[in-house]
Amino acid sequence: MSQPRRGTLYLVPASLGESPLRSTLPEAVAEQARRLQHFVVENAKTARADLKRIDHPTALRELSIVELPRNAAPQALADLLAPALDGKDIGLMSEAGVPAVADPGASLVREAHRLDIQVIPLVGPSSLLLALMASGLDGQRFAFHGYLPVQDGARASALKTLEAASRQHHQTQLFIETPYRNTKMFHALLTSCQPGTRVCVARGLTTADEWVRTCTVARWKKSPPPSLDKIPTVFLLLAD
Amino acid sequence: MSQPRRGTLYLVPASLGESPLRSTLPEAVAEQARRLQHFVVENAKTARADLKRIDHPTALRELSIVELPRNAAPQALADLLAPALDGKDIGLMSEAGVPAVADPGASLVREAHRLDIQVIPLVGPSSLLLALMASGLDGQRFAFHGYLPVQDGARASALKTLEAASRQHHQTQLFIETPYRNTKMFHALLTSCQPGTRVCVARGLTTADEWVRTCTVARWKKSPPPSLDKIPTVFLLLAD
Repeated sequence: MSQPRRGTLYLVPASLGESPLRSTLPEAVAEQARRLQHFVVENAKTARADLKRIDHPTALRELSIVELPRNAAPQALADLLAPALDGKDIGLMSEAGVPAVADPGASLVREAHRLDIQVIPLVGPSSLLLALMASGLDGQRFAFHGYLPVQDGARASALKTLEAASRQHHQTQLFIETPYRNTKMFHALLTSCQPGTRVCVARGLTTADEWVRTCTVARWKKSPPPSLDKIPTVFLLLAD
Repeated sequence: MSQPRRGTLYLVPASLGESPLRSTLPEAVAEQARRLQHFVVENAKTARADLKRIDHPTALRELSIVELPRNAAPQALADLLAPALDGKDIGLMSEAGVPAVADPGASLVREAHRLDIQVIPLVGPSSLLLALMASGLDGQRFAFHGYLPVQDGARASALKTLEAASRQHHQTQLFIETPYRNTKMFHALLTSCQPGTRVCVARGLTTADEWVRTCTVARWKKSPPPSLDKIPTVFLLLAD
């Protein structure tokens, strides 16, 4: 083959808020990130902050840091991957946690596969995975749904649908909410779900705000409500 | 309150096979594991090997390492958590990867929540999460189904059901197979799914055998089949 050696697309985890680096990123992952000069990122500002935290040895202004456009056309994605076709490694980073899961990035990974560019996922913090581990709900069967509808009636209806699916398939249901709407989501869960349904609230994972509790809707109703406002939270439910 | 301070249940990730510690476990996670004296584990032998790899400072025979029984009754689970009620921290470890996700452990976490024992999930490698990141398939909506049926007809039927659900909900479907049946599963995917369905094979993540490829069923059929025998592999599909 006369093709030059291709670069690799590394999937580089970012911190979840103010989580300490030593407890969230393996040392060799930080080392790999420090070797990269080309980054495609969800948000240039948070990516620069993360690269600074891991002590990237290159001056940040000398790194190539390009934001991944929303709904990028295939040609735009291929352009972002051009350095890899030229033998240079690229790092993909999202705003928080691992790229391409509950976050943008999958479109670029898809294009990398199409171009036969090697993709290497690196270990780091994922609020979804940590929430599922800590929930005590079923980790053998689960589904993630992203954001639910915002309007009250539609949200209640979505929660009832997830609860029914959970009961039918014995499947843990995971979803998230924009942080300033977390309290509203919590109360919607208590009013929409059955008393025996177990609900887990996993707040501020890996940060000083970390707090995880799972109990039935009936028991949640008897407890003081957790303060969730503006703190990233994963919600999970399992109906038996 | 006159209750003594309770211990915490730490969820301690294990390696995925022979993956290097420095690239899979944050240093503070290893440090936390080294401070624990009580462990509840899926498999005592692999847990001891993992504790040895992280250089646990206590002689292994002096650590309390108890296997989690399958289908343990609530009282048995409460007994396993007794040290935490007595103020001692406990580590939960599965055979590979993170506990309680695609692995046993959720029952113990559930009991911990019932007893108001704090649960702290630690960051480490999860083959499901790494596979989803690296697949380029949809990471905003996905479901994990564990093992599919083994019998040929039932397996083909399960794959068609997952493919239909994937198309209907635009949801990435993840599942696993006992490693010696991986090749059979791969060929079942190619014969059961539509030509345009994208299939990802994520093999040996974090190990020297790591290999991830995503393409359509039609393109997989034209490629030499990957060697998957006896290597842990995650399978994913997305039908557009």
